Amino acid sequence: MVNINKKLIGVYHLEIINDFLNSINGLTPYFSLVAAYTATVQIPGVSGAGITSELRELTATADVEILALGKAVCLQEGVPSNPSGAPGPSIITHAAFKLIPEMTYLPIDVGLKIMPAVKSIVKLEGASQAKAVSSGQALENEAQAQKLFYSGWKLGVKLGSECANSGHYLIIAETIPGGTTTALGLLLALGINAEELVSSSMPGNAHHLKLEAVKQGFQALGKEKGAFAKTPLAGVAALGDTMQPAVAGMAMGASIHCPVMLGGGTQMAAVVALAAALVKNGEVDRTRIKPENIALVTTRWVSEDATADLSGLGAAIETKFGPFPVCYMSANLDFSQSKYPGMRQYELGFVKEGVGAGAAALAAMLTKNLDPDEFLPYIERSYEQLCL
Amino acid sequence: MVNINKKLIGVYHLEIINDFLNSINGLTPYFSLVAAYTATVQIPGVSGAGITSELRELTATADVEILALGKAVCLQEGVPSNPSGAPGPSIITHAAFKLIPEMTYLPIDVGLKIMPAVKSIVKLEGASQAKAVSSGQALENEAQAQKLFYSGWKLGVKLGSECANSGHYLIIAETIPGGTTTALGLLLALGINAEELVSSSMPGNAHHLKLEAVKQGFQALGKEKGAFAKTPLAGVAALGDTMQPAVAGMAMGASIHCPVMLGGGTQMAAVVALAAALVKNGEVDRTRIKPENIALVTTRWVSEDATADLSGLGAAIETKFGPFPVCYMSANLDFSQSKYPGMRQYELGFVKEGVGAGAAALAAMLTKNLDPDEFLPYIERSYEQLCL
Repeated sequence: MVNINKKLIGVYHLEIINDFLNSINGLTPYFSLVAAYTATVQIPGVSGAGITSELRELTATADVEILALGKAVCLQEGVPSNPSGAPGPSIITHAAFKLIPEMTYLPIDVGLKIMPAVKSIVKLEGASQAKAVSSGQALENEAQAQKLFYSGWKLGVKLGSECANSGHYLIIAETIPGGTTTALGLLLALGINAEELVSSSMPGNAHHLKLEAVKQGFQALGKEKGAFAKTPLAGVAALGDTMQPAVAGMAMGASIHCPVMLGGGTQMAAVVALAAALVKNGEVDRTRIKPENIALVTTRWVSEDATADLSGLGAAIETKFGPFPVCYMSANLDFSQSKYPGMRQYELGFVKEGVGAGAAALAAMLTKNLDPDEFLPYIERSYEQLCL
Repeated sequence: MVNINKKLIGVYHLEIINDFLNSINGLTPYFSLVAAYTATVQIPGVSGAGITSELRELTATADVEILALGKAVCLQEGVPSNPSGAPGPSIITHAAFKLIPEMTYLPIDVGLKIMPAVKSIVKLEGASQAKAVSSGQALENEAQAQKLFYSGWKLGVKLGSECANSGHYLIIAETIPGGTTTALGLLLALGINAEELVSSSMPGNAHHLKLEAVKQGFQALGKEKGAFAKTPLAGVAALGDTMQPAVAGMAMGASIHCPVMLGGGTQMAAVVALAAALVKNGEVDRTRIKPENIALVTTRWVSEDATADLSGLGAAIETKFGPFPVCYMSANLDFSQSKYPGMRQYELGFVKEGVGAGAAALAAMLTKNLDPDEFLPYIERSYEQLCL
């Protein structure tokens, strides 16, 4: 029997999570990666997703390529990395794909700046690069957010139905550097007290800089926190990014048919907040979807991050937009025993999550019944192949 | 079969917690309550444990009486309550005792201001009222903290051995109003970045006031955060309270023989930090104790508190003083459907924890196989008996 306990460390809404884990038992993961660019990533100090400003423009493109091609052809070498030297989270997701060759990969473009050399990529209607959250006009308009939501929904229904008919569950992951700042933007737009709760790819977090960027956005709009609680997609258009409406739509649409893992930390919590707000406001009929089929899966580095608070964030979302469970589990990854100093940087608070690393790791550990220490060498091998 | 999942909501270190839950399966809880006074509670604004300054002096005494006598003879009526009108957490613990008549009750005095009318109370060597944390000299001296630790240890070994021989596990709970501020004091003394992580009996928390009180203490000492990382019991004497060394000793001593639930939120996290620091510094031999026999049990209100972060706090403790697991689980209590407005105040962030409410609730739900909604009427009955 698979020992799930060693593979997970933090769990919130234990009952729902246990039912969820039972529901995916024996199923094969289907991995979708929603990729986009937001100019928010260029605001100094908010992101560690890429070593330089130029490279941050390539991060999402490179992530898409790595999982399809086994290397980032858009980069000269390696994977998108943190200024600390820590390799990006794609090494974890890559290792999961190596372990589960039967895992389907579907990259989805919702606004990349640079096209990846991957033919199979799907472009969602409404996709475009987002402007910085500080502009207060991140997307073109609310109609674009709606377009992304409904094209996401349609794709989600289709994928969910396919998964249900073929013994799969769906993972929806993201790569959108700067995304914890747009997560903060959306959460504040919706009126969630998330100021100190979102996570970060840097050890000290950068709450102040992120908040400053979002405040500039509110100022440009002449609006206050919570102004979009009743118009969530307008909030996305003002202070969010293109990934958020697309994934909210996909997750809700797919939940009708199959279990859905949202692969990510506080960025995915913002997506769940958007979903809950859309239900609360009657824009989505609660009886059409199955919220209990949606579970956020992240890494231990996010769930134990002392500069963020995923359960606090979940509770704040539930209080404002519930009943809608915000449940999560975290894969028990630990790089302290890695032979590579770059990987050990994770234990100092660098990187933490991205490219669905937590969900992919859990999927791999469950599928192959590996404990975290047994999975570690596979990640090291991916690191060697991709970076050394 | 008991459905544990419904009874818990948040879990950290899932594997250890699952082993722990298996280890107490079929055992009877033995409930000890460590009670004390600290003048810290009188610092304006830091505590909601009592409606007035005079009543806060009686809170711990009243809690001890309620569990022994079914009423607080030191009060004119009712239970110690929050200024909001929310009844104190003793109504939850009282309900657990009603449900489990075979649960032994052992009150332990480590420095009460007013003696309870309870004959069976045990006074630990070294017990005395503590001064405010802002004095920088909360206890008389380090020797007092050591005395409390070793008398706690001796009692823990004795109780643990008795529990093991009679089919019990041990719950160690606390009632020490003002205790989240002394928790912050001890954690900062040990060098844990706990500034924004501790919980509170008030909705907005009072991080600033608590931190101010602790900073005054450091100033009076002419010392800085982390000054006591290598002399943890001196840190307790400077900036902690009498409950902390007593419970750290009890828990470690008892862990040799039986499973131990630490009933409390961030106050008990500070106790675990103290235990881990004592092990790290070689004052306690790690091979003598069984840290995996110690689990923190609290309420949903603490684990989802957006103004605190129990997993972040645990991770910070592990990083500094590990390997020493700081694992927790939270009882899935929810008063939103209570017929009493005072109880519904819990959902707004008042009270949250105390008198081992989370551990007692979990013990009751496990022993009687009640789900949280089935346990709620028993708490309401206790509220009626004690307060109406």
